Amino acid sequence: MTEHTDRTRRPFVMKEGVAMLARTPGALDALLRGLPEGWITAHEGGATWSPFDIVGHLIHGERTDWIPRARMILEHGETRAFDSFDRFAQFAASQGRALSSLLDEFTALRTQSLSDLTALRITDADLDRRGRHPELGVVTLRQLLATWVAHDLDHVMQISRVLARQYSDDVGPWRAYLRIISGAQG
Amino acid sequence: MTEHTDRTRRPFVMKEGVAMLARTPGALDALLRGLPEGWITAHEGGATWSPFDIVGHLIHGERTDWIPRARMILEHGETRAFDSFDRFAQFAASQGRALSSLLDEFTALRTQSLSDLTALRITDADLDRRGRHPELGVVTLRQLLATWVAHDLDHVMQISRVLARQYSDDVGPWRAYLRIISGAQG
Repeated sequence: MTEHTDRTRRPFVMKEGVAMLARTPGALDALLRGLPEGWITAHEGGATWSPFDIVGHLIHGERTDWIPRARMILEHGETRAFDSFDRFAQFAASQGRALSSLLDEFTALRTQSLSDLTALRITDADLDRRGRHPELGVVTLRQLLATWVAHDLDHVMQISRVLARQYSDDVGPWRAYLRIISGAQG
Repeated sequence: MTEHTDRTRRPFVMKEGVAMLARTPGALDALLRGLPEGWITAHEGGATWSPFDIVGHLIHGERTDWIPRARMILEHGETRAFDSFDRFAQFAASQGRALSSLLDEFTALRTQSLSDLTALRITDADLDRRGRHPELGVVTLRQLLATWVAHDLDHVMQISRVLARQYSDDVGPWRAYLRIISGAQG
Protein backbone atom coordinates (compact mmCIF):
# COMPACT_ATOMS: atom_id res chain seq x y z
CA MET A 1 0.00 0.00 0.00
CA THR A 2 1.39 3.42 -0.92
CA GLU A 3 1.57 5.89 1.90
CA HIS A 4 -1.49 8.03 2.38
CA THR A 5 -0.48 11.69 2.04
CA ASP A 6 -3.75 13.63 1.52
CA ARG A 7 -4.51 15.20 4.90
CA THR A 8 -8.13 16.06 3.99
CA ARG A 9 -9.44 12.54 3.29
CA ARG A 10 -8.66 9.10 4.61
CA PRO A 11 -9.83 5.75 3.38
CA PHE A 12 -11.60 3.76 6.09
CA VAL A 13 -9.06 1.46 7.74
CA MET A 14 -10.41 -0.82 10.45
CA LYS A 15 -7.67 -0.14 12.98
CA GLU A 16 -7.97 3.64 12.59
CA GLY A 17 -11.76 3.61 12.73
CA VAL A 18 -11.77 1.47 15.84
CA ALA A 19 -9.24 3.83 17.47
CA MET A 20 -11.77 6.66 17.14
CA LEU A 21 -14.80 4.57 18.16
CA ALA A 22 -13.01 3.41 21.30
CA ARG A 23 -12.39 7.00 22.40
CA THR A 24 -15.87 8.52 22.13
CA PRO A 25 -17.32 7.26 25.44
CA GLY A 26 -14.32 8.51 27.41
CA ALA A 27 -14.39 11.89 25.67
CA LEU A 28 -18.10 12.38 26.42
CA ASP A 29 -17.60 11.18 29.97
CA ALA A 30 -14.78 13.67 30.53
CA LEU A 31 -16.81 16.48 28.98
CA LEU A 32 -20.17 15.85 30.65
CA ARG A 33 -20.01 13.82 33.87
CA GLY A 34 -20.76 15.94 36.91
CA LEU A 35 -21.64 19.10 34.98
CA PRO A 36 -24.31 21.30 36.57
CA GLU A 37 -27.79 20.20 35.49
CA GLY A 38 -28.41 23.32 33.42
CA TRP A 39 -25.66 22.35 30.99
CA ILE A 40 -26.93 18.78 30.69
CA THR A 41 -30.47 19.77 29.75
CA ALA A 42 -29.49 22.73 27.56
CA HIS A 43 -30.78 22.61 23.99
CA GLU A 44 -31.12 24.82 20.91
CA GLY A 45 -34.86 25.45 21.09
CA GLY A 46 -37.92 23.62 19.80
CA ALA A 47 -37.42 19.89 19.41
CA THR A 48 -33.60 20.08 19.39
CA TRP A 49 -31.63 17.73 21.60
CA SER A 50 -29.76 18.29 24.85
CA PRO A 51 -26.48 16.55 25.77
CA PHE A 52 -28.65 14.20 27.87
CA ASP A 53 -30.80 13.34 24.83
CA ILE A 54 -27.74 12.83 22.63
CA VAL A 55 -26.09 10.31 24.97
CA GLY A 56 -29.38 8.39 24.97
CA HIS A 57 -29.38 8.44 21.17
CA LEU A 58 -25.84 7.03 21.08
CA ILE A 59 -26.92 4.23 23.43
CA HIS A 60 -29.81 3.35 21.14
CA GLY A 61 -27.39 3.24 18.21
CA GLU A 62 -25.20 0.70 19.98
CA ARG A 63 -28.21 -1.48 20.69
CA THR A 64 -29.97 -1.38 17.33
CA ASP A 65 -27.88 0.20 14.61
CA TRP A 66 -24.19 -0.42 14.04
CA ILE A 67 -23.37 -4.01 14.91
CA PRO A 68 -26.86 -5.33 14.04
CA ARG A 69 -26.55 -3.73 10.59
CA ALA A 70 -23.01 -5.05 10.09
CA ARG A 71 -24.34 -8.54 10.86
CA MET A 72 -27.25 -8.01 8.48
CA ILE A 73 -24.83 -7.17 5.66
CA LEU A 74 -22.66 -10.21 6.38
CA GLU A 75 -25.60 -12.61 6.74
CA HIS A 76 -28.18 -11.32 4.27
CA GLY A 77 -26.38 -8.93 1.88
CA GLU A 78 -28.77 -6.86 -0.18
CA THR A 79 -31.65 -9.28 0.19
CA ARG A 80 -32.95 -7.83 3.43
CA ALA A 81 -33.18 -4.13 4.29
CA PHE A 82 -31.96 -2.90 7.67
CA ASP A 83 -34.58 -2.14 10.29
CA SER A 84 -35.31 1.57 10.40
CA PHE A 85 -33.49 3.47 13.12
CA ASP A 86 -35.72 5.18 15.67
CA ARG A 87 -34.32 8.67 16.16
CA PHE A 88 -36.65 9.32 19.09
CA ALA A 89 -36.25 6.11 21.11
CA GLN A 90 -34.07 7.83 23.71
CA PHE A 91 -36.86 10.06 24.96
CA ALA A 92 -38.69 7.13 26.53
CA ALA A 93 -35.62 5.01 27.28
CA SER A 94 -33.71 7.75 29.14
CA GLN A 95 -36.64 9.12 31.12
CA GLY A 96 -35.94 9.48 34.82
CA ARG A 97 -32.34 8.29 34.51
CA ALA A 98 -29.22 10.11 35.60
CA LEU A 99 -26.67 11.21 33.01
CA SER A 100 -23.98 9.28 34.89
CA SER A 101 -25.96 6.09 34.37
CA LEU A 102 -26.33 6.81 30.64
CA LEU A 103 -22.59 7.48 30.31
CA ASP A 104 -21.81 4.20 32.06
CA GLU A 105 -24.18 2.35 29.77
CA PHE A 106 -22.78 3.92 26.61
CA THR A 107 -19.24 2.99 27.68
CA ALA A 108 -20.23 -0.62 28.41
CA LEU A 109 -22.21 -1.00 25.18
CA ARG A 110 -19.41 0.46 23.07
CA THR A 111 -16.89 -1.93 24.63
CA GLN A 112 -19.21 -4.79 23.77
CA SER A 113 -19.77 -3.48 20.23
CA LEU A 114 -16.04 -3.31 19.55
CA SER A 115 -15.61 -6.79 20.95
CA ASP A 116 -18.42 -8.00 18.66
CA LEU A 117 -16.79 -6.21 15.74
CA THR A 118 -13.51 -8.01 16.35
CA ALA A 119 -15.36 -11.32 16.54
CA LEU A 120 -16.83 -10.71 13.08
CA ARG A 121 -13.26 -10.96 11.68
CA ILE A 122 -13.99 -8.56 8.88
CA THR A 123 -11.47 -8.71 6.04
CA ASP A 124 -10.60 -5.96 3.56
CA ALA A 125 -12.69 -7.82 1.00
CA ASP A 126 -15.64 -7.94 3.40
CA LEU A 127 -15.64 -4.13 3.53
CA ASP A 128 -17.00 -4.11 -0.03
CA ARG A 129 -19.94 -6.36 0.84
CA ARG A 130 -23.28 -4.75 0.22
CA GLY A 131 -26.43 -4.32 2.23
CA ARG A 132 -29.67 -2.44 1.81
CA HIS A 133 -30.62 0.68 3.72
CA PRO A 134 -34.40 1.23 3.92
CA GLU A 135 -34.08 4.78 2.55
CA LEU A 136 -30.61 5.13 1.04
CA GLY A 137 -30.62 1.87 -0.93
CA VAL A 138 -27.45 -0.13 -1.49
CA VAL A 139 -24.62 0.63 0.92
CA THR A 140 -21.38 -1.16 1.75
CA LEU A 141 -20.02 -2.43 5.02
CA ARG A 142 -17.16 0.06 4.60
CA GLN A 143 -19.68 2.91 4.37
CA LEU A 144 -21.54 1.66 7.45
CA LEU A 145 -18.38 1.54 9.55
CA ALA A 146 -17.07 4.91 8.31
CA THR A 147 -20.50 6.36 9.14
CA TRP A 148 -20.35 4.92 12.65
CA VAL A 149 -17.17 6.93 13.25
CA ALA A 150 -18.47 10.13 11.63
CA HIS A 151 -21.79 9.79 13.50
CA ASP A 152 -19.97 9.72 16.85
CA LEU A 153 -18.06 12.86 15.93
CA ASP A 154 -21.21 14.54 14.60
CA HIS A 155 -22.73 14.19 18.04
CA VAL A 156 -19.58 15.34 19.86
CA MET A 157 -19.83 18.40 17.63
CA GLN A 158 -23.53 18.81 18.39
CA ILE A 159 -22.95 18.63 22.15
CA SER A 160 -20.18 21.24 21.91
CA ARG A 161 -22.44 23.52 19.90
CA VAL A 162 -25.45 23.15 22.20
CA LEU A 163 -23.27 24.00 25.19
CA ALA A 164 -21.45 26.94 23.58
CA ARG A 165 -24.65 28.53 22.30
CA GLN A 166 -25.89 28.86 25.86
CA TYR A 167 -23.56 31.86 26.02
CA SER A 168 -24.66 33.38 22.68
CA ASP A 169 -25.72 36.55 24.49
CA ASP A 170 -23.09 36.69 27.20
CA VAL A 171 -20.07 36.53 24.85
CA GLY A 172 -21.06 39.99 23.59
CA PRO A 173 -19.00 41.31 20.67
CA TRP A 174 -16.80 38.17 20.62
CA ARG A 175 -19.74 36.49 18.93
CA ALA A 176 -18.22 37.66 15.64
CA TYR A 177 -15.15 35.48 16.22
CA LEU A 178 -16.92 32.37 17.49
CA ARG A 179 -18.08 30.27 14.57
CA ILE A 180 -19.76 27.84 16.94
CA ILE A 181 -22.19 30.64 17.86
CA SER A 182 -22.34 32.68 14.66
CA GLY A 183 -22.84 29.53 12.58
CA ALA A 184 -20.20 30.63 10.05
CA GLN A 185 -18.68 27.72 8.18
CA GLY A 186 -15.02 26.86 8.02
CA MET B 1 -32.38 34.96 42.00
CA THR B 2 -35.34 33.48 40.13
CA GLU B 3 -34.77 30.06 38.67
CA HIS B 4 -33.40 30.00 35.16
CA THR B 5 -35.83 28.13 32.90
CA ASP B 6 -34.83 29.04 29.33
CA ARG B 7 -32.92 26.02 28.03
CA THR B 8 -31.45 27.88 25.02
CA ARG B 9 -29.52 30.61 26.85
CA ARG B 10 -27.75 30.82 30.18
CA PRO B 11 -26.31 33.83 31.90
CA PHE B 12 -22.63 33.39 32.69
CA VAL B 13 -22.29 32.10 36.26
CA MET B 14 -18.75 31.62 37.52
CA LYS B 15 -19.29 28.15 38.99
CA GLU B 16 -20.96 26.86 35.82
CA GLY B 17 -18.36 28.39 33.53
CA VAL B 18 -15.51 26.95 35.57
CA ALA B 19 -17.18 23.51 35.49
CA MET B 20 -16.93 23.54 31.67
CA LEU B 21 -13.41 25.01 31.56
CA ALA B 22 -12.16 22.35 33.95
CA ARG B 23 -13.41 19.56 31.67
CA THR B 24 -11.94 20.56 28.31
CA PRO B 25 -8.40 19.21 28.81
CA GLY B 26 -9.71 15.81 29.92
CA ALA B 27 -12.16 15.63 27.04
CA LEU B 28 -9.47 16.40 24.46
CA ASP B 29 -7.10 13.98 26.13
CA ALA B 30 -9.69 11.20 25.99
CA LEU B 31 -10.49 11.97 22.36
CA LEU B 32 -6.97 12.41 20.98
CA ARG B 33 -4.23 10.77 23.05
CA GLY B 34 -2.76 7.75 21.32
CA LEU B 35 -4.73 8.18 18.08
CA PRO B 36 -2.92 7.05 14.92
CA GLU B 37 -0.79 9.88 13.51
CA GLY B 38 -3.01 10.33 10.44
CA TRP B 39 -5.93 11.48 12.60
CA ILE B 40 -3.75 13.92 14.56
CA THR B 41 -2.41 15.69 11.47
CA ALA B 42 -5.67 15.62 9.51
CA HIS B 43 -6.98 19.00 8.37
CA GLU B 44 -9.60 20.52 6.07
CA GLY B 45 -7.26 21.68 3.30
CA GLY B 46 -5.24 24.83 2.67
CA ALA B 47 -4.24 26.64 5.87
CA THR B 48 -6.86 24.94 8.06
CA TRP B 49 -5.79 23.45 11.37
CA SER B 50 -5.26 19.89 12.47
CA PRO B 51 -6.12 18.57 15.95
CA PHE B 52 -2.39 18.95 16.71
CA ASP B 53 -2.46 22.62 15.69
CA ILE B 54 -5.62 23.26 17.70
CA VAL B 55 -4.21 21.90 20.96
CA GLY B 56 -1.21 24.19 20.43
CA HIS B 57 -3.57 27.12 19.92
CA LEU B 58 -5.38 26.32 23.19
CA ILE B 59 -2.01 26.26 24.99
CA HIS B 60 -1.14 29.67 23.60
CA GLY B 61 -4.50 30.99 24.83
CA GLU B 62 -3.77 29.83 28.37
CA ARG B 63 -0.41 31.57 28.31
CA THR B 64 -1.35 34.88 26.72
CA ASP B 65 -5.10 35.38 26.46
CA TRP B 66 -7.61 34.53 29.15
CA ILE B 67 -6.08 35.16 32.56
CA PRO B 68 -3.76 37.94 31.33
CA ARG B 69 -6.77 39.74 29.85
CA ALA B 70 -8.84 39.24 33.01
CA ARG B 71 -6.01 40.81 34.97
CA MET B 72 -5.77 43.66 32.49
CA ILE B 73 -9.47 44.45 32.99
CA LEU B 74 -9.17 44.34 36.78
CA GLU B 75 -5.98 46.42 36.84
CA HIS B 76 -6.37 48.85 33.96
CA GLY B 77 -10.03 48.86 32.95
CA GLU B 78 -10.61 50.53 29.60
CA THR B 79 -7.45 52.59 29.74
CA ARG B 80 -5.21 49.96 28.22
CA ALA B 81 -6.12 47.68 25.31
CA PHE B 82 -5.36 43.95 25.50
CA ASP B 83 -2.33 42.69 23.62
CA SER B 84 -3.37 41.21 20.29
CA PHE B 85 -3.71 37.43 20.28
CA ASP B 86 -1.38 35.63 17.89
CA ARG B 87 -3.50 33.03 16.10
CA PHE B 88 -0.43 31.46 14.52
CA ALA B 89 1.93 31.20 17.49
CA GLN B 90 1.36 27.46 17.82
CA PHE B 91 3.01 26.64 14.52
CA ALA B 92 6.46 27.56 15.86
CA ALA B 93 5.78 26.64 19.50
CA SER B 94 4.50 23.11 18.77
CA GLN B 95 7.08 22.20 16.14
CA GLY B 96 8.75 18.87 16.74
CA ARG B 97 6.69 18.09 19.83
CA ALA B 98 4.52 15.07 20.48
CA LEU B 99 0.77 15.49 20.88
CA SER B 100 0.97 13.77 24.26
CA SER B 101 3.32 16.49 25.46
CA LEU B 102 0.95 19.22 24.22
CA LEU B 103 -2.00 17.56 25.96
CA ASP B 104 -0.03 17.38 29.21
CA GLU B 105 0.90 21.03 28.91
CA PHE B 106 -2.65 22.16 28.17
CA THR B 107 -3.92 20.24 31.21
CA ALA B 108 -1.28 21.76 33.49
CA LEU B 109 -1.80 25.29 32.17
CA ARG B 110 -5.57 25.07 32.51
CA THR B 111 -5.25 23.87 36.10
CA GLN B 112 -3.01 26.86 36.80
CA SER B 113 -5.40 29.24 35.00
CA LEU B 114 -8.35 28.10 37.10
CA SER B 115 -6.29 28.44 40.24
CA ASP B 116 -5.33 31.97 39.16
CA LEU B 117 -8.97 32.72 38.42
CA THR B 118 -9.99 31.68 41.93
CA ALA B 119 -7.24 33.84 43.38
CA LEU B 120 -8.68 36.88 41.57
CA ARG B 121 -11.79 36.56 43.82
CA ILE B 122 -14.05 37.95 41.14
CA THR B 123 -17.42 39.15 42.46
CA ASP B 124 -20.69 39.44 40.56
CA ALA B 125 -20.10 43.19 40.41
CA ASP B 126 -16.61 42.62 38.97
CA LEU B 127 -18.16 40.76 36.03
CA ASP B 128 -19.47 44.10 34.75
CA ARG B 129 -16.03 45.72 34.79
CA ARG B 130 -14.89 46.87 31.40
CA GLY B 131 -11.74 46.49 29.38
CA ARG B 132 -10.67 47.32 25.86
CA HIS B 133 -10.20 44.81 23.08
CA PRO B 134 -7.82 46.00 20.34
CA GLU B 135 -10.39 45.31 17.61
CA LEU B 136 -13.76 44.84 19.30
CA GLY B 137 -13.57 47.88 21.59
CA VAL B 138 -15.16 47.88 25.02
CA VAL B 139 -15.87 44.44 26.47
CA THR B 140 -16.73 43.25 29.97
CA LEU B 141 -15.06 40.68 32.19
CA ARG B 142 -18.28 38.64 31.96
CA GLN B 143 -17.98 38.58 28.16
CA LEU B 144 -14.32 37.57 28.36
CA LEU B 145 -15.06 34.64 30.68
CA ALA B 146 -18.12 33.48 28.70
CA THR B 147 -15.98 33.64 25.56
CA TRP B 148 -13.29 31.51 27.20
CA VAL B 149 -15.88 28.74 27.66
CA ALA B 150 -17.38 29.10 24.18
CA HIS B 151 -13.90 29.22 22.61
CA ASP B 152 -12.99 25.87 24.20
CA LEU B 153 -16.17 24.32 22.83
CA ASP B 154 -15.63 25.93 19.42
CA HIS B 155 -12.35 24.05 19.17
CA VAL B 156 -13.81 20.77 20.44
CA MET B 157 -16.33 21.20 17.63
CA GLN B 158 -13.60 22.00 15.12
CA ILE B 159 -11.57 18.92 16.08
CA SER B 160 -14.66 16.72 15.74
CA ARG B 161 -15.40 18.19 12.32
CA VAL B 162 -11.82 17.86 11.03
CA LEU B 163 -11.78 14.21 12.08
CA ALA B 164 -15.24 13.32 10.72
CA ARG B 165 -14.59 14.95 7.35
CA GLN B 166 -11.71 12.57 6.77
CA TYR B 167 -14.44 10.07 5.89
CA SER B 168 -16.42 12.42 3.64
CA ASP B 169 -15.97 10.02 0.73
CA ASP B 170 -16.09 6.72 2.58
CA VAL B 171 -19.46 7.33 4.28
CA GLY B 172 -21.06 7.14 0.82
CA PRO B 173 -24.79 7.91 0.72
CA TRP B 174 -24.94 8.47 4.51
CA ARG B 175 -23.31 11.80 3.79
CA ALA B 176 -26.85 13.19 3.42
CA TYR B 177 -27.59 12.43 7.08
CA LEU B 178 -24.30 13.64 8.56
CA ARG B 179 -24.45 17.37 9.13
CA ILE B 180 -20.83 17.35 10.25
CA ILE B 181 -19.86 16.40 6.71
CA SER B 182 -22.61 18.01 4.64
CA GLY B 183 -22.20 21.29 6.52
CA ALA B 184 -25.98 21.60 6.98
CA GLN B 185 -26.89 23.75 9.97
CA GLY B 186 -29.04 22.73 12.89
